[in-house]
Amino acid sequence: MKGKPIAAIVSAGLSKFGKLENYTGRELFAEAVYEAFERCPKLDPKKDIKAIFVGMMSESFEHQGHVAPMLSDWAGLLPAPAIRTEIACASSAAALRTGIFSLLSGIYDVVLVGGFEKMTKRSTAETTEILGMAADYPFEQWNGITFPGLFALMATAHMHKYGTTEQQMGLIAVKNHHNGALNPKAHIQKEVTLETVMASRMVAKPLKLYDCSLISDGASCVVLTNPEIARQFCDNPVFIIGSGHGSDTLSLYQRESLTLIKATRNAAKEAYEMADVKPKDIDIAEVHDCFTIAELIAYEDLGFCQPGEGGKFIEKGTSTIEGDLPVNTSGGLKAKGHPVGATGTAQVYEIYLQLTGQAEKRQIDGSKIGLTQNLGGSGASSIVHIFRRE
Amino acid sequence: MKGKPIAAIVSAGLSKFGKLENYTGRELFAEAVYEAFERCPKLDPKKDIKAIFVGMMSESFEHQGHVAPMLSDWAGLLPAPAIRTEIACASSAAALRTGIFSLLSGIYDVVLVGGFEKMTKRSTAETTEILGMAADYPFEQWNGITFPGLFALMATAHMHKYGTTEQQMGLIAVKNHHNGALNPKAHIQKEVTLETVMASRMVAKPLKLYDCSLISDGASCVVLTNPEIARQFCDNPVFIIGSGHGSDTLSLYQRESLTLIKATRNAAKEAYEMADVKPKDIDIAEVHDCFTIAELIAYEDLGFCQPGEGGKFIEKGTSTIEGDLPVNTSGGLKAKGHPVGATGTAQVYEIYLQLTGQAEKRQIDGSKIGLTQNLGGSGASSIVHIFRRE
Repeated sequence: MKGKPIAAIVSAGLSKFGKLENYTGRELFAEAVYEAFERCPKLDPKKDIKAIFVGMMSESFEHQGHVAPMLSDWAGLLPAPAIRTEIACASSAAALRTGIFSLLSGIYDVVLVGGFEKMTKRSTAETTEILGMAADYPFEQWNGITFPGLFALMATAHMHKYGTTEQQMGLIAVKNHHNGALNPKAHIQKEVTLETVMASRMVAKPLKLYDCSLISDGASCVVLTNPEIARQFCDNPVFIIGSGHGSDTLSLYQRESLTLIKATRNAAKEAYEMADVKPKDIDIAEVHDCFTIAELIAYEDLGFCQPGEGGKFIEKGTSTIEGDLPVNTSGGLKAKGHPVGATGTAQVYEIYLQLTGQAEKRQIDGSKIGLTQNLGGSGASSIVHIFRRE
Repeated sequence: MKGKPIAAIVSAGLSKFGKLENYTGRELFAEAVYEAFERCPKLDPKKDIKAIFVGMMSESFEHQGHVAPMLSDWAGLLPAPAIRTEIACASSAAALRTGIFSLLSGIYDVVLVGGFEKMTKRSTAETTEILGMAADYPFEQWNGITFPGLFALMATAHMHKYGTTEQQMGLIAVKNHHNGALNPKAHIQKEVTLETVMASRMVAKPLKLYDCSLISDGASCVVLTNPEIARQFCDNPVFIIGSGHGSDTLSLYQRESLTLIKATRNAAKEAYEMADVKPKDIDIAEVHDCFTIAELIAYEDLGFCQPGEGGKFIEKGTSTIEGDLPVNTSGGLKAKGHPVGATGTAQVYEIYLQLTGQAEKRQIDGSKIGLTQNLGGSGASSIVHIFRRE
């Protein structure tokens, strides 16, 4: 299937992201689905959508497991059967990949994929513990390390090996907040200066408050079809031409290297080969900036620059919204927000808007090929997708 | 694909089921995988297995989410990428169905699917609360109802509508304990009499202790291949010829009927049509007897008998190991045990053993077509698979 579409996106939806006190997760999911249906009037949800695949990281936020049939119900799609996929913060990218499998299998022709997370009802301490369950219990959680600490270890190793600086990481925060200020659905819509980032309080050295993504509520979804029938539903489908998935050890200490994420490299290799494109062909990307160091390493793992050159890549401005390869025009996890189960398909939502010319103030004209990269945990899971407009 | 194999099973493995104090979930999964590899010496796990799909119901039992890459690691399969699927107690049937999608997609040719749950480390009260998360939070959990109560409502409705008796349900417990006594991996390997069942303490009227399945630790797995290449790995593959999945409202009160499970009916319809077989063609089945009433309703929903005739079906002995359509020769969830995430593929393990003549004391000779039915929650999810030996 090299270079050929493996699925088509005919619509997408995103709830507002933020601290949304009056909404449960299922309501946010319904909000995202409603937008997707509004956007695609030729779609008859009850008749057309044969199944749904949804990502949610943790049952603990709302004391609610078994969410898949519940979401099919709240999306108005029953009796469409539903499966939840979970690989921590990459749960909805896994839903997308699973949805693609189901279309390629020939068993379904139209499916809805998406995800949500309702995080802000819990205290920060509770949320930290819940998120911590995506790290290894006996080898990591038990010893008290949480995700800021794990990514701080990666940042320190990268600084030591390559001379990467805190300022370079800070520039990623500045860029993503700049983009988020252009996104009316972003959790935080305000610019920050490098001075503010550098002066923010230390969370886990060298990562400061502004190096960390947000704890948010939100939901996202995408309607996928078999590529051959996409034009029955819309005039400007976006085609998915590559999908890749990598896994690695759950514990960071077992990895071969702290300065790269092998799961991302394996996922990117699979996706690039399937799509028959090279990193230089990518016009726009949404990558997993749970911490600024994660975006910096993603530049390298995705082949946007050489290993060790991530710091210079952001310094040169290549990934800014005015640059040659804009990354996280949505604001990313950093400013748009990171309701973990929603993040994977929220990245896809942004690429869909960009490739169909609907990204308004942050529109990058002329983009043809887009990429998303969604990470689970400290990098035990990573999924990459590649998209093309006609 | 009517009547054609959609996947082949070339091996399967099952850990011991029970209260296994010295084992973690990942160790039990490794035990199941080890058996599957031992059973299939032509399989080179590292080289052949391209991905894994695993079911686990709840992160709360071991305070461990993001288990999929961890299980790929503990199965010795990294860098094979891994996705967890979750639809409560049907989580590993969802892994199987997802694995089939991935094979039919052409992206993978050999995958391992399975599941596990490590339940007995928690107190009964904790376990009841954790399992309860598979029911609706605002509409069910919040009001204090748990699964024995939900299935008791179904049992009461069935008794009222059709005259089903407590004795008839009790006969299902007697049958499954009889079978479990023949299964060296079953959690409880002892026969019970109807008198014992009827005299056991009430859990949720009319369901008594012996109407309820067990809280167990355990793991299971199945190695699936593209049907065309199955004989590279073994001489007697079992073919999967049907797969069906149904969803319904999470809350029981919203269902159209309390005396049938629509998700099972929809799943069965899809699976039978795909397999091009009828209920009368089924030689052997493993169905979801989380409570005896669930097995009784399954007889009806799967078309083994008419609606309302489930009680007579067991009274006549049709589903006993000596009957025309043996159901739950493994002992079922009732005696073999119910480590929830493991159950779906544990059912498949039994059918695999039966159709390949490896079921020892409980072997049903001459069986050619088998069926599994795996339920999530009180019936918001149900998955049916149909199998055929050559």
